[in-house]
Parts: sequence; C-alpha cells; structure tokens
Amino acid sequence: MSEKITLVGGGLAGGLLGVYLARRGYKVKIFERRSDMRSGNYEGGRSINLALSTRGIRALEKVGLDKEILSIAIPMTGRMIHDVEGRLAYQPYGKDGQAIHSVSRGGLNIRLLQLADQYENIELFFDHRCVHADPDTGLTRYINANGDEIEDTADVVIGTDGAFSAVRDSMMRYPRFNYSQTYENHGYKELEITPGDSGEFRINKNCLHIWPRKSFMMIALPNPGGNFTCTLFMPFVGQPGFENLQTPQEILELFEKEFPDALPMMPGLSEDFFGNPTGALATIRCYPWVKGKTALLGDSAHAVVPFYGQGMNCSFEDCIILDELIDTCEGDWIKILDEYQKSRKPNADAIADLAVQNFVEMRDLVGTDAFLHRKHIEHDLTELYPDLFHSQYELVTFSTNPYSYAKVQGSKNDNLLDHIIEHKLESRITEKTFMENLIKEKLA
Amino acid sequence: MSEKITLVGGGLAGGLLGVYLARRGYKVKIFERRSDMRSGNYEGGRSINLALSTRGIRALEKVGLDKEILSIAIPMTGRMIHDVEGRLAYQPYGKDGQAIHSVSRGGLNIRLLQLADQYENIELFFDHRCVHADPDTGLTRYINANGDEIEDTADVVIGTDGAFSAVRDSMMRYPRFNYSQTYENHGYKELEITPGDSGEFRINKNCLHIWPRKSFMMIALPNPGGNFTCTLFMPFVGQPGFENLQTPQEILELFEKEFPDALPMMPGLSEDFFGNPTGALATIRCYPWVKGKTALLGDSAHAVVPFYGQGMNCSFEDCIILDELIDTCEGDWIKILDEYQKSRKPNADAIADLAVQNFVEMRDLVGTDAFLHRKHIEHDLTELYPDLFHSQYELVTFSTNPYSYAKVQGSKNDNLLDHIIEHKLESRITEKTFMENLIKEKLA
Repeated sequence: MSEKITLVGGGLAGGLLGVYLARRGYKVKIFERRSDMRSGNYEGGRSINLALSTRGIRALEKVGLDKEILSIAIPMTGRMIHDVEGRLAYQPYGKDGQAIHSVSRGGLNIRLLQLADQYENIELFFDHRCVHADPDTGLTRYINANGDEIEDTADVVIGTDGAFSAVRDSMMRYPRFNYSQTYENHGYKELEITPGDSGEFRINKNCLHIWPRKSFMMIALPNPGGNFTCTLFMPFVGQPGFENLQTPQEILELFEKEFPDALPMMPGLSEDFFGNPTGALATIRCYPWVKGKTALLGDSAHAVVPFYGQGMNCSFEDCIILDELIDTCEGDWIKILDEYQKSRKPNADAIADLAVQNFVEMRDLVGTDAFLHRKHIEHDLTELYPDLFHSQYELVTFSTNPYSYAKVQGSKNDNLLDHIIEHKLESRITEKTFMENLIKEKLA
Repeated sequence: MSEKITLVGGGLAGGLLGVYLARRGYKVKIFERRSDMRSGNYEGGRSINLALSTRGIRALEKVGLDKEILSIAIPMTGRMIHDVEGRLAYQPYGKDGQAIHSVSRGGLNIRLLQLADQYENIELFFDHRCVHADPDTGLTRYINANGDEIEDTADVVIGTDGAFSAVRDSMMRYPRFNYSQTYENHGYKELEITPGDSGEFRINKNCLHIWPRKSFMMIALPNPGGNFTCTLFMPFVGQPGFENLQTPQEILELFEKEFPDALPMMPGLSEDFFGNPTGALATIRCYPWVKGKTALLGDSAHAVVPFYGQGMNCSFEDCIILDELIDTCEGDWIKILDEYQKSRKPNADAIADLAVQNFVEMRDLVGTDAFLHRKHIEHDLTELYPDLFHSQYELVTFSTNPYSYAKVQGSKNDNLLDHIIEHKLESRITEKTFMENLIKEKLA
C-alpha cells in the first residue's frame, strides 16, 4: 500500500478519515488551515453544539472512540418546548432509551487529532492554508504561518475543508461543475445559559430545549459544565431581525417578551449578543464530487443547515462509505471515488432537503396543537407497530438507512397521518389488524 | 450629473448600456478584458449566432441602431425541420411578417463600441482584465496588457462581464450571496454550411434550420455571406457523444447517418470539428444582483442556455429597464439598482427555465407528429383569436410582456391545448362563441 493520500482540512471529517486511511496503511498527510487546536486555542463563539446520533456513533465505533465520546456527551431524549409563558411541553425523540448526544465540536475534534497523531503514517500540518488544488495531478499548494508557499503531490487528494472549501473552489474553475449555495433569510447567534450557583443545570439537562416563535427561535444544548450553549435563529431583516437589534435595551426587551423564562439564566446576554458574530446559514450542493485524483467529502461536498442535527453525522457516514468501498473496489481509487460519489450524492441531497424542512418544524410547527397531535399519533404508531412504522426522525437519527430512503418514507408517513386525521381514525390506532393493513397500504 | 459609472465588460450589454448612460450625461468608463475587436481580431469559433427579436430591437431603437442592424441581419420566419431522410417541414414562428433576425455577435458588438466611442463622456479601456471588485466602495482593479495593475473608483459599478463574471466572483466572497451554476449534459460545437458555387444560400435563408435527433440536434442560422453557422448540440458522454467522436471517420459516419442532407454542404466538417472547441452550456442564477455601489447586469446576473434565442434580448431588456428606472427613481442610484434587481430577477428566472424547456422541444419534440399537431392548433388559435390567444413563443419573442408572464401564460396555453386534444375539439376551433368561451375559461 504505497499510495499517498492528502487530506485538505483537519476538522471532524478530516481527522476521522485520516485515522480510517492510516489503519489501512496509506501514507496520510493532513493539512489544516487553523493552528493546532490541541494547544488550547480552539475558537468558540460561532459553533452550534453538535448532536451525535446513530450514524456518527457507528463511525466512531470503527476507531474505538464511541464509548469515550459518549461518556463525555450528554444524552438528550427529546425536545423540551418552551412557550412564551415559560410553560414546558416534552416531545420524546424516539422510543425509551433512544437519545441524541450533545458534544462539543472542539473537544471531539481534538480527540480525533490526538488519535490521528498516534499513527506513524499520518503527518499533521497546521497553519497551512490551501490556496490551490490541481485535481488531475493531485497537486495542492498551501501558504503556511510564515507566508511560505508549500507544495504537495499525492495519489489521492480529499477536500475535507468544509463549507468554504478551497479544494472545491479549484474544482469549480473547470467546466461542467454544478454548484449552488443557497442562504436562509435567517442568521444565528451563539448565546449562553449559565449554570446555577452550585454549578447545577438550571433546566432539564437531558433535552434539546426549543423556544419556537414562528419566524424565529432559540435552542439550547447542554454542556458537561452545567451550562447550555444557546443559539438564536432569527431573520437578518424584519421585526424581530438581527439588523434591527442594535442596543442592549432592544435585546433585553425582546428577551423579556419572547424568552422570559430563559432571560434570568442568561447573565451575559448582552455581551454575548454583541461579542459573538452573527452567522449565516447556507445549503451548499455540488456535483461531481470527484475530478481526476481529487474528491470532496463532508461539508465541502454538501454543507447543510443545522436543523436536523445531521451535518457531522452525515460527514462521518461519508467516511464509513468511502472506507467500505476501499474493500469493495479492492483499493482501485478510480472506482472507489466514483462509487463513493454516486452512492452519497442522493443521500446528501436528501438530508439537505430534510434539514431545511426541519427548520420550519422547529421554529413554528412544534408549538402548534395540530403538530403535537400528529406527533402523538406518530409516537403511538412507533410504539404499537415497531416493525411496520418508523418515523422519519427515527430513520434519520436512530438508523443507518440511507437518508434518501428516510425522505421518501417520511412523505409516505405523512400520507398515513393525513389519512388517520382526516378520517378521525385516532381511536382505532390500537385495532391491530385494521391498523396493520392501513399502514401496509399507505407505506407500500 | 457628476456621477462616475464604471462598466466592467464591453460586450453587447456593456456597449449598449454605456451608450444609454452617456446619453444621460454620466461619466462612463468601460473596461474590457479582450483586445479592441474593432481592430479585426474578433475571435469566432465558439459563438452561436444571435437571434435578435422584439426586445432586442426595441433596445437598439432607443439608440437609433435598429434599422441599421436589421438591414444587415437575415430575417428567419420559422423553423425548417430536417428529418434523417432529408425531408423538410416548415413551422412558422408567428404570424405573417413576424421574424427573428440572425445577426453576428462580433458585428453587432463592434457597432455598439463604435457608437460608444462617439461619446466624449465614455472612455474605453481594452486588454483590462478585472481581478477584483470591492462592491461597497465602487473600487475595481484590473491587470492590463503590460501586466500592470490599474485601479478605478466609481460611484456606480456595473458588472457586464458575462457568464464568468469577475465582478460576481468578488460579490460571491461575501455572505448571503445565493448562487447556482447548472450544466447541461450536452456540449456544443460550431460548424459551417458553406455557400454554393455562386455564393448562394444552399438551403432556405429565411429559416432557422433544425435537425432534431432526440438526444442531440444540429441547428443552422444564415449569415449575409451565403453561409450558415451550424451548431451541433450533443451529450459529452454516450452514443453519440463528443467524448466518443475522436476520428474524422467517426464524424463522417455520424453525419452520413444522421445529417445526410447537410453533409455535402459542409466541406470543412472535420477541420471545424477538431479545430473548434467543445463548449459547455450552463444556466447561472444568483441573488442579490446588487451590493453597495455594485450591480450585475446581463449574463453576469443570469446566464441562460441558448435554446430560446433570448440571452442577448434579455440582457438588452435589462438595459432598458435600468435606463427607465433612472427616470422613475430620479437618479437615486440606491433606488435604481434595488428596483432594477427586484423587477428583473423573476423575469430572468422565467426565461432561464423556458430556455431549458425549449431544448427538449427543439431536439426532440419538433420532430414528432403530436408536437406538429399541437403547433397547428396553436397556430390556428393565434390566427383566429388574435386578441385572446398568444402562444408562449409569441409572448417571449414578439412582445415585451414580462418573461414571467409568458411562462405562466404558456402553462395555461398547455392546459387549453391538452383540453382541445383530449376532447377532440379540433373541428370546433372555428366555432367563434364556443371557442372564445373556452379560451377565456382556460386562460383565466
């Protein structure tokens, strides 16, 4: 196995993929734009906490990191909806014991780099900003911290350099590269709910908290320190909108009116609001993901909005698929990369669509009675007919079925639920034969 | 009127817009990447001939160029369909006297630059390649023929620099810029039908000739010299496909089989095929078109595929709308640019969609009996109910109704035609009252 593989980007996908490849004996180089985050200079302030779920856990399992990461993660078994009066409503994500896991991006990234560093056949280069990739020859160029230009040539180059990928920029200069970037009208701002006086969690630690307000929302994910990382999603323009929130007084009034229960737990609100950047949210799609010796993987190939909590999980699944194809295609990288893109593209498109749809669900629908009624029916079906009925959320989050399957199945589920509600069949959900036939018919 | 306006790009849109602005007294600079094409170095070999129609003619009329350009253009009153046996079928584009006009891109561009050069308040800079635009300050930077960097600052900057716009590239580096480039699986190749021995046209000069072959097609547009500019549209991959046509023998066999009537008129086929580049076809969409002092106009804002013959016409209409808004908004460029983008974006999207749809029509449907039948009904309706019924082609090509209106109306027309065919009402098309009521109902 003499092939040299260069990964452009040492984030989550680059770190994990590096380990996968090194285990197989490839000579791996990872070039990362940022400084070594293991030296403690990880930049916070704009990262939505990650929700690790089944696909991501399975990917970590392959390198033996799953138990360790889960032990420092916080399981969230459902959504806790906060209304404007501060009243709470709990919606479980799945069946008993099913949970998604709140983890810090920085912590997980550092752990992956530590693991990568244990391999003699992985070389890590920090402060190397990729400025050019020549897809056909496998050549890449970087500017390092001294401003010197560094050149590298590999047999395979994989751009794991995120949503604003430099490798993709280079591929885009060739004809017939399809590309789109689509921004939401909403931006986001990282805020914080601090721990109580004794360091305790001040709201239920095992939930993903949502304050749905139709056109905008706040969410909160727990951290091991007792605090919650909050994210406010709001239009840039309009009322309320980021562009119209210019003074501490305006922030305070907004939170008093809309998030009265959260406000007392957010002592640094104003500092956070004006200190942290307002992030933009984009869906990025492109194709092909492969040209010559070079491929895109993770966010560089398919950046999604964060509302299904699948960005990292999807990128990790890319790594699994690529790793499995090394066996299937017996190490022939032309085949591996081509099969990889063909297999992953429809799934990346599906999760991108679902993530956008879920934004409407989270910020608006979850607060409505009609939605709660649907969720109850769905939950009953999941409990009563576990072999026949799987919610879309379950298929996406707690299974490794392809995302494209989850998307199609979710539409069929919607038809079934529409039918039950339209024909007032809620009382017959427990009638086994009747219901089994109905489910089979509607989900066929 | 002290405002300085810089146009990046002296192609068709830049040339025309420059004249519009100079007439109003603005100080205009036009920076063009290429050399001065008036010196006779216009680069051919990859330009599909232009079909000037109502919108474009109206735009030229405003600067008094319409009659002159039409006098050197060749009117095409309809499509001439060539089947594989060489049999011909003629489909008129509109009513008697309605025609689109074949003009050479180079000739028209040169004429616009000559006109621009007559204005003392227009400065033309050739061999200036834009390398950077700072949208908020109106600063632009260029590399000239000597390799020197030139800087310019203007009150308003308009990127008229085409599908691969450098101005747009600069705008794209800011957040919240929506962008997509979508390539067809087909490429194109410029070829030629030469004049006869006495310099005569060897096929009907007043038609746009089409050889529809389902997955691929050739078209031919007349030039004043008696020759036709042909364009072969074909998938890159597959059979037939550009990637599988590697030898003169393979080209010859393809043309003998598919275009037997054209082949004897194409003595330079092989030279043209291997000498001319294979072009790619993309639809480019973006938004916003305006940031700070900088706007995009023409192909830089909305490159479309050539199948509705509206690329230039649409860009020229951009110029008209912008020019009219200078009056409406009383010279307030913040308002002018914002109204311009709001007004034009839906129309640019509509013609982009229609152009893609028309590709299927041209290469496949025009050759089928079902399509011919529809076209006959449509033609009868147009003739019999000229106040009530307008074909989509007529609305796009022979009117200045918004493209978005043409798109919507075209769908309604389809419903009407579906109804007539499904209910076998062809024989009742001449029944005035019945038909008028049906048209009103279906097109409401």
